[in-house]
Amino acid sequence: MNFVDKLLQAGRKNNSLVCIGLDPDPKLMPEKIGVYEFNKAIIESTFDLVCAFKPNLAFYEAMGDEGMEALKKTVKCIPSHIPVIADAKRGDIGNTSKAYAKALFEIYGFDAATVNPYLGFDSIEPFLQYEEKGSIILCRTSNTGGKDFQSLRCETPKGLRYLYEIVAEKAAEWNTRGNVGIVVGATYPDELKTIRCQHPDLPILIPGIGAQGGDVAAAVKNGVSPQGDRAIINSSRQIIYASKSSDFAEAARKAAVNLRDQINMYR
Amino acid sequence: MNFVDKLLQAGRKNNSLVCIGLDPDPKLMPEKIGVYEFNKAIIESTFDLVCAFKPNLAFYEAMGDEGMEALKKTVKCIPSHIPVIADAKRGDIGNTSKAYAKALFEIYGFDAATVNPYLGFDSIEPFLQYEEKGSIILCRTSNTGGKDFQSLRCETPKGLRYLYEIVAEKAAEWNTRGNVGIVVGATYPDELKTIRCQHPDLPILIPGIGAQGGDVAAAVKNGVSPQGDRAIINSSRQIIYASKSSDFAEAARKAAVNLRDQINMYR
Repeated sequence: MNFVDKLLQAGRKNNSLVCIGLDPDPKLMPEKIGVYEFNKAIIESTFDLVCAFKPNLAFYEAMGDEGMEALKKTVKCIPSHIPVIADAKRGDIGNTSKAYAKALFEIYGFDAATVNPYLGFDSIEPFLQYEEKGSIILCRTSNTGGKDFQSLRCETPKGLRYLYEIVAEKAAEWNTRGNVGIVVGATYPDELKTIRCQHPDLPILIPGIGAQGGDVAAAVKNGVSPQGDRAIINSSRQIIYASKSSDFAEAARKAAVNLRDQINMYR
Repeated sequence: MNFVDKLLQAGRKNNSLVCIGLDPDPKLMPEKIGVYEFNKAIIESTFDLVCAFKPNLAFYEAMGDEGMEALKKTVKCIPSHIPVIADAKRGDIGNTSKAYAKALFEIYGFDAATVNPYLGFDSIEPFLQYEEKGSIILCRTSNTGGKDFQSLRCETPKGLRYLYEIVAEKAAEWNTRGNVGIVVGATYPDELKTIRCQHPDLPILIPGIGAQGGDVAAAVKNGVSPQGDRAIINSSRQIIYASKSSDFAEAARKAAVNLRDQINMYR
C-alpha cells in the first residue's frame, strides 16, 4: 500500500489527524530509561490515537551509534498499519539524493521522508522514484527564520509570488505518482490557508502546535482538505514529555487523546 | 585553530586548492575492499596534495551501520592538519539543528559542515555557535535543478536579485565569527564570478568539476579570492575512481597531482 493510502486508512481507523514526533532528548526524558524503551512505551500507549509517527533523525544522530540503533528498533516496533515519517530534511544532487533515499526507505524502512527543496527537481526525484513511499517537501517551515528566504517574493510568469507558494506549486507539479506531500507550519495560519486553498488534495504535514505556539483551531480549519483529512498535525514535546516521571506513557496518552479530540472538534 | 585558518594553512603547506570528495560507491570501487580500507589508501596517497577532504554522508548512510562505522574511522585517519568537511547539507528548526551540529562536530569530529539555508537564520545559527568549526552554506549548487528555486529573481530593497545572491549576502551578514563559507558549483561559472566579486573574502566550496562537467580554468579564475585562495575545489569520482584495479590509490594520486597542477596553472 502506498504512503498516502496508508496515512488515510490509519487516520480513519483511529479517527485522528495527530502525528506524534518521536524526538528523544535525554534532558527531558525520565531518568534511567533508554531511548528505545522510552519510544516503545510511548508508541504502545498511543498507536490507536494517531495517523502517523515521526522520528526526527537529528536527535538520534546526536546520540551516536546508540541513537541510530534505537531509531532502527523504534521504526520496527511501530505497528505496520501506522505510517512512519523520517523527519530528515534531506536533499542533495541526484546520485547523492539517491543514496539518502536508499538509506531512509531501504535501510531504515520508513514510509515517508521530509525533503528540502533548495536543490530543485533532480534532488527530489530520487525520492519520488520510490512510488510507494511519501516525499514531503518543506514549503513554509514553522520556525521564525523560515521567513528569511521562504517569504521572499519572486518573479514568475503570473507575477510576484512568495517562494513558499512557488515551492508548493512545484511540489504539486512533481506529484505525478501521487506520493508527494508538503510541510507548512501551524505557526503561519494565513500561509497555511493560502496553500491549502491552492492545493486541496496535497497531504500537508503541519508542525508547530504546542511548544512552538501554533494554534490548533487555526491549524485544523486552515489545514485540512475539503474532505476533512490530508492534514498530519504533529506534536512532539507536548505529548512525549507530558510527564517526566514513571507515568510518562500514560501522560502521553492523555495528551494525545486531548489533542485528537481538540482537533476533531474543529474538523 | 579555527576552520578557515586550518584550511588556509593546509592549502599553503600543500600548495593546493584541491579537495577530495570521499564518496564511496561499491559499484565503482575495486572489488573485495572495505570502505574504510579504500578511503585510508586514498587518504595516505593524497593527503600532501589537498587543502581538505570531504566525505558526503549520504554514501555512508546508504550502507547502514557498516558505512557509519567506516565514516567514523575515515575522519579519524585523516592527518589532523588537513580539515575534514562533512558534506551533509543539514538544516532544521533551532533545537533540531543543534542536534545535527552536535552529531557532526562532536560525535564525528568534522571541522566543517555544509548546511542548507532554506529554513533561514535560526536553522544555521546552532552550527555557527561552534566558533572553531566551519559552516558552509549552499548558495548556487552544481546540479541542473539548482536553478529551479536558486535562480528565481526576488524582491529586495535594492531591486530584484537572484535567490542565490540573497543567500550569499545573508551568509556574509551571518559571518560575525569568521566561520562561514558558501557553496557555488563550477558548473555555473558566471554565477561563481558574480558571487566572488560580491564576497572577496568568503571561502567558497566549488563542486562540479570532473564528472559533472565544470571547467577547471573558469572555476579557478572566477572562484579564487583576490589573494588567490579561499577556493575549495572539489573532485570526487574523477580522483577516487581513477582506476578500479589494485593501483587505485596510485591512480588517485596521479589524478590529484594533475588537478592540483592544472588549478595552480590558472591561479
